[in-house]
Amino acid sequence: MSKIGFGLIGAGTIGRIHARNIAEHPDTTLHWVVDIDAKAGKALAAAHGASSSTSVDEMLDDPQVQAVVIGSSTDVHETHLLASVRAGRAVLCEKPIADSLERAKNCLAAAHAANVVAAIGFNRRFDAHHRAVYDRVRAGEIGTVESVHIVSRSGAAIPPAAAQRAGGMLREKGTHFYDLAHWMTASEPVEVYAAGGCLFDRGYAAYGDVDTAALTLRFASGALATFSFSRRTTFGYDEMIEVFGSKGMLQSERQPARSAAGVRGARALGEGIHPTWYDRFAPTYVAELEAMVTAIRTGKPMEPDLVDGMRAQAVAEAAVESLQQGKPVAIADVWQAK
Amino acid sequence: MSKIGFGLIGAGTIGRIHARNIAEHPDTTLHWVVDIDAKAGKALAAAHGASSSTSVDEMLDDPQVQAVVIGSSTDVHETHLLASVRAGRAVLCEKPIADSLERAKNCLAAAHAANVVAAIGFNRRFDAHHRAVYDRVRAGEIGTVESVHIVSRSGAAIPPAAAQRAGGMLREKGTHFYDLAHWMTASEPVEVYAAGGCLFDRGYAAYGDVDTAALTLRFASGALATFSFSRRTTFGYDEMIEVFGSKGMLQSERQPARSAAGVRGARALGEGIHPTWYDRFAPTYVAELEAMVTAIRTGKPMEPDLVDGMRAQAVAEAAVESLQQGKPVAIADVWQAK
Amino acid sequence: MSKIGFGLIGAGTIGRIHARNIAEHPDTTLHWVVDIDAKAGKALAAAHGASSSTSVDEMLDDPQVQAVVIGSSTDVHETHLLASVRAGRAVLCEKPIADSLERAKNCLAAAHAANVVAAIGFNRRFDAHHRAVYDRVRAGEIGTVESVHIVSRSGAAIPPAAAQRAGGMLREKGTHFYDLAHWMTASEPVEVYAAGGCLFDRGYAAYGDVDTAALTLRFASGALATFSFSRRTTFGYDEMIEVFGSKGMLQSERQPARSAAGVRGARALGEGIHPTWYDRFAPTYVAELEAMVTAIRTGKPMEPDLVDGMRAQAVAEAAVESLQQGKPVAIADVWQAK
Amino acid sequence: MSKIGFGLIGAGTIGRIHARNIAEHPDTTLHWVVDIDAKAGKALAAAHGASSSTSVDEMLDDPQVQAVVIGSSTDVHETHLLASVRAGRAVLCEKPIADSLERAKNCLAAAHAANVVAAIGFNRRFDAHHRAVYDRVRAGEIGTVESVHIVSRSGAAIPPAAAQRAGGMLREKGTHFYDLAHWMTASEPVEVYAAGGCLFDRGYAAYGDVDTAALTLRFASGALATFSFSRRTTFGYDEMIEVFGSKGMLQSERQPARSAAGVRGARALGEGIHPTWYDRFAPTYVAELEAMVTAIRTGKPMEPDLVDGMRAQAVAEAAVESLQQGKPVAIADVWQAK
Repeated sequence: MSKIGFGLIGAGTIGRIHARNIAEHPDTTLHWVVDIDAKAGKALAAAHGASSSTSVDEMLDDPQVQAVVIGSSTDVHETHLLASVRAGRAVLCEKPIADSLERAKNCLAAAHAANVVAAIGFNRRFDAHHRAVYDRVRAGEIGTVESVHIVSRSGAAIPPAAAQRAGGMLREKGTHFYDLAHWMTASEPVEVYAAGGCLFDRGYAAYGDVDTAALTLRFASGALATFSFSRRTTFGYDEMIEVFGSKGMLQSERQPARSAAGVRGARALGEGIHPTWYDRFAPTYVAELEAMVTAIRTGKPMEPDLVDGMRAQAVAEAAVESLQQGKPVAIADVWQAK
Repeated sequence: MSKIGFGLIGAGTIGRIHARNIAEHPDTTLHWVVDIDAKAGKALAAAHGASSSTSVDEMLDDPQVQAVVIGSSTDVHETHLLASVRAGRAVLCEKPIADSLERAKNCLAAAHAANVVAAIGFNRRFDAHHRAVYDRVRAGEIGTVESVHIVSRSGAAIPPAAAQRAGGMLREKGTHFYDLAHWMTASEPVEVYAAGGCLFDRGYAAYGDVDTAALTLRFASGALATFSFSRRTTFGYDEMIEVFGSKGMLQSERQPARSAAGVRGARALGEGIHPTWYDRFAPTYVAELEAMVTAIRTGKPMEPDLVDGMRAQAVAEAAVESLQQGKPVAIADVWQAK
Repeated sequence: MSKIGFGLIGAGTIGRIHARNIAEHPDTTLHWVVDIDAKAGKALAAAHGASSSTSVDEMLDDPQVQAVVIGSSTDVHETHLLASVRAGRAVLCEKPIADSLERAKNCLAAAHAANVVAAIGFNRRFDAHHRAVYDRVRAGEIGTVESVHIVSRSGAAIPPAAAQRAGGMLREKGTHFYDLAHWMTASEPVEVYAAGGCLFDRGYAAYGDVDTAALTLRFASGALATFSFSRRTTFGYDEMIEVFGSKGMLQSERQPARSAAGVRGARALGEGIHPTWYDRFAPTYVAELEAMVTAIRTGKPMEPDLVDGMRAQAVAEAAVESLQQGKPVAIADVWQAK
Repeated sequence: MSKIGFGLIGAGTIGRIHARNIAEHPDTTLHWVVDIDAKAGKALAAAHGASSSTSVDEMLDDPQVQAVVIGSSTDVHETHLLASVRAGRAVLCEKPIADSLERAKNCLAAAHAANVVAAIGFNRRFDAHHRAVYDRVRAGEIGTVESVHIVSRSGAAIPPAAAQRAGGMLREKGTHFYDLAHWMTASEPVEVYAAGGCLFDRGYAAYGDVDTAALTLRFASGALATFSFSRRTTFGYDEMIEVFGSKGMLQSERQPARSAAGVRGARALGEGIHPTWYDRFAPTYVAELEAMVTAIRTGKPMEPDLVDGMRAQAVAEAAVESLQQGKPVAIADVWQAK
């Protein structure tokens, strides 16, 4: 079987991860790296034997390119996604779909019209541990889901200005986890309440952002999800999911970076958690690519798709509004799942 | 040293626990069991060689009684507490202090005026595991507390009508955990948001009560606590505390009832958690009594005291209001800490 | 139902544990404490409202005494056991049965002839965690037992001379664990190999004893047990059992003394294990007494019985010989299970 | 810096692992795959753009080849190792060095004379978890090592005849773990005792081999190591190391394959361990290659080296003799570490 040709837009951190995975996957070839920074694009392309360009159109003119990974900055997601799907290419777009719900809706409509594989980069869904919990939940092992608790605390804080460009914590970090909560409950989000503050860096406040937040998300099924977010720990990347159901409880547990444990004096000896998000989740990007290969090969839709991206983005918008207004906000006020 | 004489009001479930602990403690003697149900009081008194009565006054007339444990029904807590402290007796009162904030304030004032040991029965504070976390938090091991997450899920559900008599879940269950969150943060609660619903038994709805709830509590320090409550699990009594701080994270973890674990096929083998609240927390009542003995012997105040009881009760009232109104409620609207 | 009357021989550490448990158990009464040290006996008896004596016969003359707990020094176990069973009393004898296999055999024969409940104080069998493993093993959850590994490391070392009086580590500590291995395998021990040395205190060598040992015990079923013993840790009392079978594996795991765990920097935070053997195993003595009460009430035999005591003692003798000779020793050379 | 050129001897299971790792490593190039099965060699070479041959000499004639990985069958290890080191190539040889101690000594002498990097493929030393324990032990965190316990149970059993060709369990499996015990104790092995039997497949007995074994290994320091080996579990690949020292205890713990855990009813929910040895240890081969690259680049010796291979092989020979004779065997009887 011939390899699937890929084009990559964006040669930044996430772009470099995708480039390497595409280059190493036995069923995919990286043909193009596109970046407005010609030098960055050229360097990444060279490292993997691909061509580079500053033009998305040049890449899309190449019939070898069957699939596009969009890892550019959020403000041009819409442009890149519309161009790619209209050119009939399968797309994997880093979240969020676009920098406004309106633009995200355009993308959704265009992808639907083009009838192509169009996936959103919620890589957590491809974590083997989270998925093990999900598989058991879906298999009915813990009955009906009644509540979910999700912790996500970054290892190192993004500086306030950069955090603002990324949309603020409730958007940038949050979307992954609103999606995970939906995935676990299999229900549509109805209302969100967000509380938060600057516990360690007042700098975020200047942008109306927070460094610490607690959210409550109610689903149509009645299930309640709580989220505990922090922009930084001083001990590594901390993520945990707990799902409580009518017949049991399951956790995708925190993992020690290394399984060396014991006792000394009155204290346990043991290892901390993974230092960074990437130490913990590197394999998810490989699994995500694998899922895309399967979708393209089989013609079946890939999950999470743009609707999943849309839903999480809508929760994020409502959460930001809730934080500003100090009261719960209905998701329907910002988006209708249909 | 002579033993401290105790009188017990209430021969129900909690009364029987206190009676046995007082009878077995080397420094305490149970002199009286008072219950309006003469038969119940007599039976419990007989089991421990104590006298019984249906009259609190008769008990308080006995100069041997130095301390009173109040385990009667909530509607008579105020009466019993006022009588006891005005008679100069040390008091340990099961929560809540009284069935309204107004009455609770009366109790607080009376205890203050009487200058006696006056403690509230938040037994969780005496759990060795919770306390190990607390001791480490106070020792600064995890820096400044930024967030707390507390899970409490009962083993078996109280029927709706009984639940209502006990004040509803946000009061009856909640007060323990609002207090624990305050204990961990060492900060005054400022605002609470409560979401909830009937996920498995619509019967609670008839009383305006819920079987499942998620709460967010903001403290003056900025710290945020989330709570995940359920009226029942199908797998035992489930309680967990997580405290996240600027330098680390600590949990008072769920405990397997027995430490037998292994593997079979693709699955782990292991034991579930304690079937009931009492299996998990029986030792806390002994430790609570021990603390009271120490307070009486040393003349130093006992914690948690009636102010702690008041604070948690105020959070509960605000939480109930929040649940009804669907928006956060300031604690100051119902109570001023000072 | 009337209470079962007990006499206790020995007012030392273990005697005090039994005295308190008998006094507190709702179905038992402590009538006598016998000790050659009249003062010690009197003090312990007084603490629990019992009579005291320096004479076992005086105690056995009291018809109220239905059961005897033997916690005297090993050299008089035989005398006390023979007197008690010949007087028709149920007996719980601390291990070992006697200070030689010959004397132990006498005891076994006498108890058999008297047809009384005659149990050996292998308290570990009454540990809820060990028993949970045992119950699962017996239920076939891990198939046929193929190997067992047992760790026992004391919290604090017994000084060499005292250790020697107690028979040396392979006898004093070992018998508990040879018995547990037999219990788990349900097979008779066939051959033992013991290696050991003085790793931290040469003082034991003067008595031909060791402070550290590794043993291999082969059972008739072919199952192999290994044992890792140390006279001391610097971190508490360390005991663990692993059972590997044809269908799975189970452990009675080490337990943290308190379940407070987390992360700080690159390290796990957590609590050590129980400081002493008694912190870990206090409840086993209560459960052991409970088993004795049941045996006496029902007339059914109690396990572990004197045959279990005999078997473990025989393994211990063979182990000591193996250590001296530097080669494996057959159990049949010292004892025939029949 | 130019890439290090590699030749690989052996296109079997382990050869395929090395080939892929060499091909993917940024600092290495695979030039040759040599196998007596021309077809197998050609296929593996083709997959990675290398040349193939049935002749080790042809490969060694290529000056691009700086390093050789020997993954051929044991009976030709000596031939391949001697040829490679005499040709001045760095060597990584899969264990054992050769099929007899005499031949292994020849290899050791030749490698020493050639003064090349000569490493033995004890991949377990490169496991991050084992190494975390090792690093802490060497840093003195648990004081002086007094005992070690190692479990190794294969996921699936090798059939008896194949097992025999690989030298039997005490050689084939054992050498990895004798080496790990030496690594942890930093002391020379003195005496070994091996007990074993056929617990689930009598077929091994026909070759004088066993399917289950328990070994005790004494080191010069006095430290005692025990080993519990099985040829198969029914639940995956099971490996664990415990190191007990004068100041603490450390384990390289069993790891669940996925961290999904919870409770249902009276039972814990959780995942089993890794199905196969390769699922658990794939990253060790990458780390091993990395260490070889570093050794070649820096000119510093690589560990584990041929002396480590020799030592473990000597323990294996003594263990086999012990199993046959039923008594402990001194390592000095088969090899002098000097």
